[in-house]
Amino acid sequence: MLKKILIANRGEIALRIIRTCREMGIRTVAVYSTADRDSLHVRFADEAVCIGPPASRLSYLSIQNIISAAEVTGADAIHPGYGFLSENAEFSQICTDYGIKFIGATAEQINGMGDKATAKATMRSAGVPVIPGSEGLLESVEQGKQLAKEMGYPVIVKATAGGGGRGMRVINKESEFEKAWNDARQESGAAFGNDGLYLEKFVEEPRHIEIQIIGDQYGKVCHLSERDCSIQRRHQKLLEETPSPAMTPELREKMGEAAIKGAQAIGYEGAGTVEFLVDKHGDFFFMEMNTRIQVEHPITEEVTDFDLIKEQIKVAAGEPISGRNYTPKLFAMECRINAEDPANGFRPSPGKITNLHFPGGHGVRIDSHVYSGYTIPPNYDSMIAKLIVSGQSRAEVITRMKRALQEFVIEGVKTTIPFHIKLMDDEGFRSGNFTTKFLESFDFSDL
Amino acid sequence: MLKKILIANRGEIALRIIRTCREMGIRTVAVYSTADRDSLHVRFADEAVCIGPPASRLSYLSIQNIISAAEVTGADAIHPGYGFLSENAEFSQICTDYGIKFIGATAEQINGMGDKATAKATMRSAGVPVIPGSEGLLESVEQGKQLAKEMGYPVIVKATAGGGGRGMRVINKESEFEKAWNDARQESGAAFGNDGLYLEKFVEEPRHIEIQIIGDQYGKVCHLSERDCSIQRRHQKLLEETPSPAMTPELREKMGEAAIKGAQAIGYEGAGTVEFLVDKHGDFFFMEMNTRIQVEHPITEEVTDFDLIKEQIKVAAGEPISGRNYTPKLFAMECRINAEDPANGFRPSPGKITNLHFPGGHGVRIDSHVYSGYTIPPNYDSMIAKLIVSGQSRAEVITRMKRALQEFVIEGVKTTIPFHIKLMDDEGFRSGNFTTKFLESFDFSDL
Repeated sequence: MLKKILIANRGEIALRIIRTCREMGIRTVAVYSTADRDSLHVRFADEAVCIGPPASRLSYLSIQNIISAAEVTGADAIHPGYGFLSENAEFSQICTDYGIKFIGATAEQINGMGDKATAKATMRSAGVPVIPGSEGLLESVEQGKQLAKEMGYPVIVKATAGGGGRGMRVINKESEFEKAWNDARQESGAAFGNDGLYLEKFVEEPRHIEIQIIGDQYGKVCHLSERDCSIQRRHQKLLEETPSPAMTPELREKMGEAAIKGAQAIGYEGAGTVEFLVDKHGDFFFMEMNTRIQVEHPITEEVTDFDLIKEQIKVAAGEPISGRNYTPKLFAMECRINAEDPANGFRPSPGKITNLHFPGGHGVRIDSHVYSGYTIPPNYDSMIAKLIVSGQSRAEVITRMKRALQEFVIEGVKTTIPFHIKLMDDEGFRSGNFTTKFLESFDFSDL
Repeated sequence: MLKKILIANRGEIALRIIRTCREMGIRTVAVYSTADRDSLHVRFADEAVCIGPPASRLSYLSIQNIISAAEVTGADAIHPGYGFLSENAEFSQICTDYGIKFIGATAEQINGMGDKATAKATMRSAGVPVIPGSEGLLESVEQGKQLAKEMGYPVIVKATAGGGGRGMRVINKESEFEKAWNDARQESGAAFGNDGLYLEKFVEEPRHIEIQIIGDQYGKVCHLSERDCSIQRRHQKLLEETPSPAMTPELREKMGEAAIKGAQAIGYEGAGTVEFLVDKHGDFFFMEMNTRIQVEHPITEEVTDFDLIKEQIKVAAGEPISGRNYTPKLFAMECRINAEDPANGFRPSPGKITNLHFPGGHGVRIDSHVYSGYTIPPNYDSMIAKLIVSGQSRAEVITRMKRALQEFVIEGVKTTIPFHIKLMDDEGFRSGNFTTKFLESFDFSDL
């Protein structure tokens, strides 16, 4: 078993990983920027190393500083969490070169799945349904227009290096094509240093449903059912739930099998997520594969009783998995509590938390790194807590979530709590019958 | 369904009940003494009524004040929680007379189970194993000595009106009999206004294992498996767990059936707990039946997914139960976090909580009414939080509990947290092989 793990991350996910390590008797090394000196992940780790100034580029994204910290502390593994270096092929490779176990995908797998066009081609060969679109990158506006005409509008152009909604544009008719193409190129070039674009048929009335998988070093892969992440604002997930209100046992089996096939095609080891779009006919299409733990992994834990971080660590240490697939026994939802003002375009609201009280009781879980008196730095993402609720039915989860949200006290900063409370009362949301466009017509003005 | 429930209690259990009512869309009325003005149960209830000064006798035990509060607010039901008036037959009867649904047992049932000698006789007739002892109350020291000689020492004398360890004495030989008898009489007379005593064979190497049952208005009773409460100090439970490390499926079935038989014998409706002593041979003996929700009910919720308060309310409103018995799917433990100094005889440590941070993450539940800045009044019991942890094995629960205890920050008062941390590391506890006497030889001096 691994003896000492360095956590190359910050915030709630760093604390989340430390918790499991403590439970497994594995020593932990926290790394932190000078902006995170007072963070709980620093306090609860066995050792902590400062790796640079607030700017991520010089600290949480500095491969050199993190490898040095691992060397100095004698860590035998690195857990990258999500974001930052978690899907950085170079980092995965360097860890391997230094004899440090990277708790995540290999450089080859990250490259294969990180490049969206390659990922699609790989999945198509493995027999996983993919959205009709360009084979590889588009060479010109003209080629794109021709292809779009063949598939029929609407279509979407996407940055091959993209993520988080950046570098993508929906195009409804040919006259919009050129401007959208140019905008997407410019945006992806600026954001990712890569302006390659590909084209897809735009799926109408889609739901975002992803399958959690885990694979071991011996070629076995199983799935732990789905998460519905259709509640998004500008491609940013705000709430996730499981099971999906749109799921049937038959569809789960088909999507689960597809996700497993895809993962096996690249010899995948560890925890991963295969994201699909599901249309109104129940047809599903591969979107992308995340070769890391997801923000929303706790809802899967609540309905399967697995500790996914523990499973990641066990698999990384060479333990085999059972290979059995899991279906949800309960219902669970996660609200992302961000320090943002939902009434003002979700503008970040960093600053000092002057008063904090978490909800509690039956079916309520909190994953958070903040505390009363903590100052949220402006340098990183604005998520300050995940409120995870489980129950025996979707209706029970919704009423419990509302109760927990109403109990949640955070003073000193604006948060997304008022949005989530309103969402719990929304008839469209409560019906379970919604798509990824649901929030486009949501009224945020009275929050 | 009930529309408005008055909660005749305070502290964590009042908040616990309010939480479920909110989830069920039932309005709530909190009652509070002047010492509890700033309590969370007052803040989170829809309405709140002050019912008197800090002394319980004049507030939480004042039937008149509580009934008045129910009348004034138009509550159609009263939930008594545990302690205070929860097992007061007169209160149950008066609620019924006023047309207010008492969410608990009838006066007859409370009387029948509250008097320990009557309870034993009832259970014996129903075919539930009881500890050999006096049939009813002892009439004299001489009768007691004669009976003890017949059964063989050690024996125990107990107050028929007793509870919480008061009014009971273990007697190892005849020469100790008279003093123990006199002490127990005096103690029970002072504490309960009733100095009736009965005698029992003293069970050696016993475990305290109780069965959670729930019955509906239609004669159906089911059990939700057991809780092991053997970790006690002076008959005060400090930690409870489920399943019991001493349990087998066969014993669970036998004890479950006995508990159901006992409850059916008195036409029991609602949630109740049948407490047994289990000896080293796996023989079990009825101790008492609690006709109310227990402090430790959350561990049963964690392993069965039921919300027991919701079940109580549903049954009180006339809903039928399925009648199916439940066995634990997981493992769970509860540590009682008391404002007491475990290094100094668990002396109460009331006062202001100057800093508070609850643990979180996977498998961790907190039931608590306190917050940072809250002042614990000296007037009531000293429990300030219940830390409930669940997991896939007893070993996982123990490591997770230790992790959560170490994360728990409470400053300003002494608590039982250091005791629980030490307990989690104790080999005897970890082995699962212990009796109710376990803490008698525990070293509290280095806490």
